[in-house]
Amino acid sequence: MTQRVVLAYSGGLDTSVCIGWIAEATGAEVVAVAVDVGQGGESLDVIRKRALACGAVEAEVVDAKDEFAEEYCLPAIKANALYMDRYPLVSALSRPVIVKHLVAAARKHGADTVAHGCTGKGNDQVRFEAGIASLAPDLTCIAPVRDYAMTRDKAIAFAEEKGLPIATSKKSPYSIDANVFGRAVETGFLEDIWNGPIEDIYEYTQDPAVAREADEIVITFREGAPVALDGRPVTMLQAIKELNERAGGQGVGRIDMVEDRLVGIKSREVYESPGGIALIAAHQELENVTVERELARYKRQVEQRWSELVYDGLWFSPLKRALDGFVDEANQHVSGDIRMTLHGGRAVVTGRRSEQSLYDFNLATYDTGDSFDQSLAKGFIDLFSLSSKIAAKRDVAP
Amino acid sequence: MTQRVVLAYSGGLDTSVCIGWIAEATGAEVVAVAVDVGQGGESLDVIRKRALACGAVEAEVVDAKDEFAEEYCLPAIKANALYMDRYPLVSALSRPVIVKHLVAAARKHGADTVAHGCTGKGNDQVRFEAGIASLAPDLTCIAPVRDYAMTRDKAIAFAEEKGLPIATSKKSPYSIDANVFGRAVETGFLEDIWNGPIEDIYEYTQDPAVAREADEIVITFREGAPVALDGRPVTMLQAIKELNERAGGQGVGRIDMVEDRLVGIKSREVYESPGGIALIAAHQELENVTVERELARYKRQVEQRWSELVYDGLWFSPLKRALDGFVDEANQHVSGDIRMTLHGGRAVVTGRRSEQSLYDFNLATYDTGDSFDQSLAKGFIDLFSLSSKIAAKRDVAP
Amino acid sequence: MTQRVVLAYSGGLDTSVCIGWIAEATGAEVVAVAVDVGQGGESLDVIRKRALACGAVEAEVVDAKDEFAEEYCLPAIKANALYMDRYPLVSALSRPVIVKHLVAAARKHGADTVAHGCTGKGNDQVRFEAGIASLAPDLTCIAPVRDYAMTRDKAIAFAEEKGLPIATSKKSPYSIDANVFGRAVETGFLEDIWNGPIEDIYEYTQDPAVAREADEIVITFREGAPVALDGRPVTMLQAIKELNERAGGQGVGRIDMVEDRLVGIKSREVYESPGGIALIAAHQELENVTVERELARYKRQVEQRWSELVYDGLWFSPLKRALDGFVDEANQHVSGDIRMTLHGGRAVVTGRRSEQSLYDFNLATYDTGDSFDQSLAKGFIDLFSLSSKIAAKRDVAP
Amino acid sequence: MTQRVVLAYSGGLDTSVCIGWIAEATGAEVVAVAVDVGQGGESLDVIRKRALACGAVEAEVVDAKDEFAEEYCLPAIKANALYMDRYPLVSALSRPVIVKHLVAAARKHGADTVAHGCTGKGNDQVRFEAGIASLAPDLTCIAPVRDYAMTRDKAIAFAEEKGLPIATSKKSPYSIDANVFGRAVETGFLEDIWNGPIEDIYEYTQDPAVAREADEIVITFREGAPVALDGRPVTMLQAIKELNERAGGQGVGRIDMVEDRLVGIKSREVYESPGGIALIAAHQELENVTVERELARYKRQVEQRWSELVYDGLWFSPLKRALDGFVDEANQHVSGDIRMTLHGGRAVVTGRRSEQSLYDFNLATYDTGDSFDQSLAKGFIDLFSLSSKIAAKRDVAP
Repeated sequence: MTQRVVLAYSGGLDTSVCIGWIAEATGAEVVAVAVDVGQGGESLDVIRKRALACGAVEAEVVDAKDEFAEEYCLPAIKANALYMDRYPLVSALSRPVIVKHLVAAARKHGADTVAHGCTGKGNDQVRFEAGIASLAPDLTCIAPVRDYAMTRDKAIAFAEEKGLPIATSKKSPYSIDANVFGRAVETGFLEDIWNGPIEDIYEYTQDPAVAREADEIVITFREGAPVALDGRPVTMLQAIKELNERAGGQGVGRIDMVEDRLVGIKSREVYESPGGIALIAAHQELENVTVERELARYKRQVEQRWSELVYDGLWFSPLKRALDGFVDEANQHVSGDIRMTLHGGRAVVTGRRSEQSLYDFNLATYDTGDSFDQSLAKGFIDLFSLSSKIAAKRDVAP
Repeated sequence: MTQRVVLAYSGGLDTSVCIGWIAEATGAEVVAVAVDVGQGGESLDVIRKRALACGAVEAEVVDAKDEFAEEYCLPAIKANALYMDRYPLVSALSRPVIVKHLVAAARKHGADTVAHGCTGKGNDQVRFEAGIASLAPDLTCIAPVRDYAMTRDKAIAFAEEKGLPIATSKKSPYSIDANVFGRAVETGFLEDIWNGPIEDIYEYTQDPAVAREADEIVITFREGAPVALDGRPVTMLQAIKELNERAGGQGVGRIDMVEDRLVGIKSREVYESPGGIALIAAHQELENVTVERELARYKRQVEQRWSELVYDGLWFSPLKRALDGFVDEANQHVSGDIRMTLHGGRAVVTGRRSEQSLYDFNLATYDTGDSFDQSLAKGFIDLFSLSSKIAAKRDVAP
Repeated sequence: MTQRVVLAYSGGLDTSVCIGWIAEATGAEVVAVAVDVGQGGESLDVIRKRALACGAVEAEVVDAKDEFAEEYCLPAIKANALYMDRYPLVSALSRPVIVKHLVAAARKHGADTVAHGCTGKGNDQVRFEAGIASLAPDLTCIAPVRDYAMTRDKAIAFAEEKGLPIATSKKSPYSIDANVFGRAVETGFLEDIWNGPIEDIYEYTQDPAVAREADEIVITFREGAPVALDGRPVTMLQAIKELNERAGGQGVGRIDMVEDRLVGIKSREVYESPGGIALIAAHQELENVTVERELARYKRQVEQRWSELVYDGLWFSPLKRALDGFVDEANQHVSGDIRMTLHGGRAVVTGRRSEQSLYDFNLATYDTGDSFDQSLAKGFIDLFSLSSKIAAKRDVAP
Repeated sequence: MTQRVVLAYSGGLDTSVCIGWIAEATGAEVVAVAVDVGQGGESLDVIRKRALACGAVEAEVVDAKDEFAEEYCLPAIKANALYMDRYPLVSALSRPVIVKHLVAAARKHGADTVAHGCTGKGNDQVRFEAGIASLAPDLTCIAPVRDYAMTRDKAIAFAEEKGLPIATSKKSPYSIDANVFGRAVETGFLEDIWNGPIEDIYEYTQDPAVAREADEIVITFREGAPVALDGRPVTMLQAIKELNERAGGQGVGRIDMVEDRLVGIKSREVYESPGGIALIAAHQELENVTVERELARYKRQVEQRWSELVYDGLWFSPLKRALDGFVDEANQHVSGDIRMTLHGGRAVVTGRRSEQSLYDFNLATYDTGDSFDQSLAKGFIDLFSLSSKIAAKRDVAP
């Protein structure tokens, strides 16, 4: 029986060519799998038909938008996940859900190999292959661009020679990865890190410098998850989409940074994640109100490691699972409302209210009704600072 | 010989009354010490004379603005210090420099006690007393408001009865702490955390929502310190002041948050730190360019602990000193230029260049000249993910 | 109605006097509660009758040995909990289970206050009171020794004056706290930290220097919990007791250290925990075999924080609960056998076997059958060290 | 001009064959470099002559024992470095000093390549190559065993065919790596992790189970470094050697563990490090006496990361350098005497004294002279536990 390879298929030139390229290089049949994580563009049906027209023996298309939002974006919100304190892990979050469907397709179609279209110098190859290794350690991974020297020029030549039904016109100057949680842009002129981004590269966000009316929104969370906007119940996917519209419409969520890739190099990246940035800002402040101090302090460290693991492609790793348990426990009381102003590129919290609030007006107020016993402070300070004081007796020159 | 108490003196009603109050409560002579950390307001000479007029046996005034900027604000910039990922430690940074001058005055004037005007429920009492304990473990601390029940009403009565040369008019609705690095505001209506701030409470920042021209600035750093603005050499103090003007003029640096106090309660705080926020944003991005990945990842944890220690009043503690060494080492190569756009409440980096850059165009580019050896990736990924893969063989249901 | 105070009662002189002392100081009725955590000594019934004879209106005695072992010692084993890398938290573990029963008694008997016999300079007062605050924030705590100046001399005088049925003979030179998990000893001559311990102070352990036959044991764990010894099923309590006998009989588990107390001072402590030390050594090695590397590395940090929290009396705190979730998740596969030699004060693992093992003979062996693909190493090393290499190009003088 | 390769030369069969093998595979001239880190065995002169006899164009021998002790072992003592809480990094410490001399030889002899004899599945290949990358990023690394398929059988055949002056008798069943800081043993029967070690494999340590007289030693440290034994001044190298004798003579320092290798697999390792284990135990306890609590708590995390970095071959990395600064600062006051009993496999501290001690008898004692103010405790406890208490009001069912 002929061996089968499951290919992560986008419908674009590169992965369309991969179908035939893999077949020629390996003798295997190729099953194309396209996963919709909200990247927009062509319909799944068009993509499915193109895969078959390009030589796939089977083509599967999966609408994973809700699954992506619920099972991948939501944990990131709960973890306030910002790699290098900036990047909301847009592409890094989508890879594992795609991997899950690639593995399912491999099982269904009896494939022993999974293929993806990544190059050999980015993070996504790691995310695909580490994900496969952790979900299906028996499967093999191949990457034609990296492993079989499938350059862009050769791909165009292949497509034209075989008459593949795919445009081979000059490549866009932009290399884009998009999903419902955000969008990543790389392009030649940004590889000079002194150059600033131009307005042309953005799609999810309007120019924040343009004058417009501010938008005010109330986001309701339950156990860390956004469940209503302005009082209207929403799914996670709806929350992201509406905030992409409204926060993006105000220019919220642009990121321009030099980033440490897992493969050891620094790269310039521009991202847009209006929904992601707005939701994380709101979620963080609701945590400030509802999470106890020591838990909150420790959680910041956990968040950093969580973000590094996900960035590094270890979504399905044992440590990531264990940190998820911590994050979920910490979100148990993160319920309540955050009022936020979206304007001029900023998502600013202006109010918070929660039945789970640990803010105690009577302890905090300086007005009448203050219930804080100030006589406790002296003993607290003296013992809190005692170990430093004893060291000072030794260390400070008299 | 009569005992002496050194009092941290602001020139305001509370500490003016403290002079006589302490004298009556303890029988000691009071030496008033006012430290200028850029809080603005009256001249040091006016303050000094008022202290004497209120009964101080000696009054010292110290211009510590440059010292504060160089030795307290700069380390915070190097540590990208943001307590709870938000607050640039404005008040927390000024307390240790004041403590240092209080201790010096105590030595000079033969005092065995230091007094401050803080209440018993805030962080500043801890910062004063833990600081004193660590710099001068033999000195005693007193806080008349907390320890001798010196309420506001009693203070006014005392001032009027003694005819002190200080206004006792109705208190401002705002409780303010300010220095050159920023400004903290508390006020009654903000104690309802659902209420948003009003424009009236801000002084260092203009309304970011007002339309105005963007301002572009190039900040030059050397070993983590800002040393030039738009090519003009500046001291640390000048850098903060100019950025307060320019970033503040664009509405940059407002913070509104619920915060975990060291004494165990949550409080609502509003801050402005235009210079601080702009400098940290620029410094972080220059680190992204010049600091190696693993050092950068670890430094984030160190930054968090550094910020907690300083927030908690442990500036002079052994751990803080040891972390400073780490932070300085990490800043050794943080030299270069950051171009930043200040506009609409945002301080956005648009360019970076550095002779110490670790960004390698030839490794990063996807264009001609790429020197990255993609054949290395397969081996890297396979071994990087091997421990997860072995676990998966055990854990994943077949 | 008369107010009631629940007193943590040991049956000894101090807490026997506390009954009347509290009654006199507060006018309240005292309910005595004695919790058996395996401390040995008199029977619970004798203790109960003495409490009543000393004036308690009610006396409750609770056999909490199994509960202590299952719910307090076992989590410590799973966390490999060693404060300062040494101390298995013997006393720190028993306080929360006692607190739980004090709170239950307070609810049952309508008490609004809980009392304990601790002094004001140790950790146990914090553990009692922080525990009460976290389980029953409405209850008040009092400590007669600390708060009502109940010194030893005064206690003896009180007991003799009232004719309490308790010996008032000269105090033992040793201050002991014991439970089934171990024993803590403080005594005057050890306060000189240059003095070594003498054999006389130990009860749970034999002199390790005495020649005797080694003992070999196989400990079976399931999900981190010891469930069989030499193939015989055991409860957690039985496991600790048998290992106290067998490891203690070989001199295993003595600790002599200078320790950082939460109240800010350093103190000299001697502990014995033969069962605790043997179980942790076995559990650690089984984790080495069954826990994936990155999870294991992170768990070490979690273990340290867990140990600090428990030492500091924060057993019932939100962060401790969240860390428990992490620890449980990490123990999910910690099942298998550890063979250990107990001899001469050492508990040495000599063998391990597990169906959950991640040790893969075929990957590890240097003999025939090696399945490790060495060709992967080059790519791995080059990219693993690439960020350091790029930094070196900048930093190393040519 | 013919290219040159510097080879890390041990004098054994494998690296003797490498000389010719590399020459044949690459056409380059081979410069052999042997570094004495205290591994014992043949004299450096014998080794040098053999290298030349085997075809090296140059042969360098370096006595690096003192350098290794001072610059590599001492930092490990200061960091209490135990990978996985067990392994004192014996081999991991020696690789960087060897690398340093390989690089120096490459510069001296104009080589562009460095070669080592490691296989492709261990840690040492990473330590060599990551070290080279960080000290001399322009040099290339090769590993004939891994890269040119130089198996043991082929090496023997090569040696016999070429008549190399090196024994090709049947290999020892043990694979050993040794230096003055310790010894690592791997062997076939230990690859079954249920098998215990046998006495035969140990060289640095006597059987701890044999009855003998205990040995008592006083170790004097200055700023973290051992500077005298029983009052006699010693160099770092002398300290290690004398403790190897005396602690090893008592069976101290054996380690048997399953370990997580950097390349992703678990392996069984047996180590001996009598001097290392005794010095770390003594140093830890002196830190307990002289290091302030919060610094000590943080240092434990730093120690773990330091150990991981060194284990992982990142000795010369930027993060390792920055952590060294922290560790040195923390050791500034670690001066004083530790008295230790060496017996029966145990190195037990029995006394400590230091002019830098933070142990304050008057604060710690329960006898007359107690200067601890117990009235401070109530306020401390109430505020220390306040954030948990507020959370409890929300979380505990009434």
